[in-house]
Amino acid sequence: MSLVVQKYGGTSVGDAERIRAVADHVARTREAGDQVVVVVSAMGKFTDDLIRLADDVSPTRPPRELDMLLTSGERISMALVCMALAARGVESASFTGSQAGIITDTDHTRAKILEIRPTRIDEALAEGLVPVVAGFQGVSTDRDITTLGRGGSDVTAVALAAALSADVCEIYTDVTGVFSADPRVVSRARRLPRVSFDEMMEIAATGGRVLMLRSVELARRHHVPLHVRSSFTWEPGTWIVEEDPTMEEAVVTAITDDTSEAKITVGGVPDRPGVAARLFRALADRGINVDMIVQNTGANGLTDISFTVAATDLDAASDTCREVQREIGAAQVTSDDDIGRVSIVGAGMKSSPGVTALMFETLSEHGINIEMISTSSIRISCVVRTSRVAESVRLLHSAFGLDAAS
Amino acid sequence: MSLVVQKYGGTSVGDAERIRAVADHVARTREAGDQVVVVVSAMGKFTDDLIRLADDVSPTRPPRELDMLLTSGERISMALVCMALAARGVESASFTGSQAGIITDTDHTRAKILEIRPTRIDEALAEGLVPVVAGFQGVSTDRDITTLGRGGSDVTAVALAAALSADVCEIYTDVTGVFSADPRVVSRARRLPRVSFDEMMEIAATGGRVLMLRSVELARRHHVPLHVRSSFTWEPGTWIVEEDPTMEEAVVTAITDDTSEAKITVGGVPDRPGVAARLFRALADRGINVDMIVQNTGANGLTDISFTVAATDLDAASDTCREVQREIGAAQVTSDDDIGRVSIVGAGMKSSPGVTALMFETLSEHGINIEMISTSSIRISCVVRTSRVAESVRLLHSAFGLDAAS
Repeated sequence: MSLVVQKYGGTSVGDAERIRAVADHVARTREAGDQVVVVVSAMGKFTDDLIRLADDVSPTRPPRELDMLLTSGERISMALVCMALAARGVESASFTGSQAGIITDTDHTRAKILEIRPTRIDEALAEGLVPVVAGFQGVSTDRDITTLGRGGSDVTAVALAAALSADVCEIYTDVTGVFSADPRVVSRARRLPRVSFDEMMEIAATGGRVLMLRSVELARRHHVPLHVRSSFTWEPGTWIVEEDPTMEEAVVTAITDDTSEAKITVGGVPDRPGVAARLFRALADRGINVDMIVQNTGANGLTDISFTVAATDLDAASDTCREVQREIGAAQVTSDDDIGRVSIVGAGMKSSPGVTALMFETLSEHGINIEMISTSSIRISCVVRTSRVAESVRLLHSAFGLDAAS
Repeated sequence: MSLVVQKYGGTSVGDAERIRAVADHVARTREAGDQVVVVVSAMGKFTDDLIRLADDVSPTRPPRELDMLLTSGERISMALVCMALAARGVESASFTGSQAGIITDTDHTRAKILEIRPTRIDEALAEGLVPVVAGFQGVSTDRDITTLGRGGSDVTAVALAAALSADVCEIYTDVTGVFSADPRVVSRARRLPRVSFDEMMEIAATGGRVLMLRSVELARRHHVPLHVRSSFTWEPGTWIVEEDPTMEEAVVTAITDDTSEAKITVGGVPDRPGVAARLFRALADRGINVDMIVQNTGANGLTDISFTVAATDLDAASDTCREVQREIGAAQVTSDDDIGRVSIVGAGMKSSPGVTALMFETLSEHGINIEMISTSSIRISCVVRTSRVAESVRLLHSAFGLDAAS
């Protein structure tokens, strides 16, 4: 008998019919002999509706109250899932984040889980019930209700799976798994049956939309196998697991793209110690996350520092750079939101020296200019014009032999 | 400085505009120098929407999960009220029933409050915050979320006012107070500035729709003055307070009507001990509440027992009577749902012997037949045909001098 944590996202519980389908699947899983813990998100667009309502009521939204508001969504979906299970003769009980023992810090709207004390979940399992737990929420050390921020329901599911020593954490969503590229961009993209944690982290960090980096990190740290699959087709999806050292790895597993970033270049900076530190400290103090950073020093002792930020942070980041421009002696600050990032990810890349060359050749053969490059041991990212992103993904998908047989 | 508990019902927080109006009023109350604790219901028809959704999902609704579902409504309204208060510079904090220390028994969907431990409410008040508490909900001794049943938010407000020794519990609703009769029936009905707890209990029990009997009882027991008033006009409404023995009381304060009941007559019953006991035990065991009971014994040693029940219970009650009919030796069981009850209520009635006569004369002069009569020390109720109820109320309202000057 395995213990399976099944997490159902917003589209998976989007209406009454979907909720009944979820209950059917939970019942099937139990009939197959497994214990199940369910984690649910709020129904479909319910959270968006609540935020619109809050906008209507007040321009001010204290974070504590925003959390109180938003956590009502999972209450609704989990109670409905339990009712649907009851109709199938499966006994279950719903638990709020607080009741499930999900203890967080006090950082409202983006709290971090400090500890899980799943006493009531253990008790429910021992009684033969299916515990249905509210995703995305917890209770703070100040006894206030908190939310875990974007992708929070996945975090709940993975953390709970770790605390319960579950055999697998299944993430049910509206796609059938993780693909070798975005199928909307590459029609011959293939579903990947198996991806390593390291690869999945790079995929999530560079534009893969299925899982957030945070929950993959958590799963890797606690050795929780993830299985990303569809609650519409119920077919097996993508397993995200430890790297298997006995197997030969694909050189390149996936091509990702991300057009949500913009680039800032701080140009003509004197190349002396402390300049970069001053610049990135100022950005960090403003809460701006910097992604890629590239610095090149010319022969004249001046350097250009380019970096990418979320496009939504571009104005704030530009302002910050201009504020420190004089202090660091920079000649100019320029910004560019017409960029996109294309990345290749693969655990086998470590031992295949020709990969970088093939990526650059493929792009250059088609006249695609590479504006920034950054690498990790299992990823290479290139910044190109937004208009060339989709084409780049398709070319690289073919060049690295990922196209599905037609 | 007074401590005021303000309870806002569903229509009072029905949309964004109403919620802002509530926040304005709370801010005004604070500016006048009072401390405020707010209790809110779910927004308008939100609870009905959730029940419809549950019906869609499942024919089975475990009470524990129904409570989990329904308590999401107050979370939403209280968080929104806090946001609207923040926009006015009033610091507040929302509290679920559990956080407010409202401990109930484990009887889901109609739990009773066992105890209130308002530690966090006291703390919030001491910090100068406005606590905004979810009505209708609590946490059971089993740590599960419960609801208090119909009129539950009023119960929360009154119980909290008692626990906090508040000076007044204000019940905001969509009417301007308690009237001498239903204004839809009697156009010259007057708003009552002041009603005693005893009178209000009789009014609530015989068809007054503003307050449920349960919360009036609770307020009387704990000596919590109630002030029923409108959140649309904000004018002073009706105070429900201890009887003032120094004041002359109106003989008749209000005329009420109730057409939600039906009558059952168990006829030709041998007049011997234990017959009524057997009959009403059988009904009680089926969970059927009996309201008026009238028994008349004829010269032949046979008796007719008539009683009223909620019309929705009529079929179950008739079936139960037929089941025991043979055992108690009754000749027949008949039922009639075409009846209504008209009552006159007044604390001064105790010392005015002519009241009963005037009531019966008024009805008989207009050819209205009285089918059942029941009395308490401050109330007389008559059962008449449904078609004559409104007319009876209007006639009695005039006869007892309650008509407003036109």
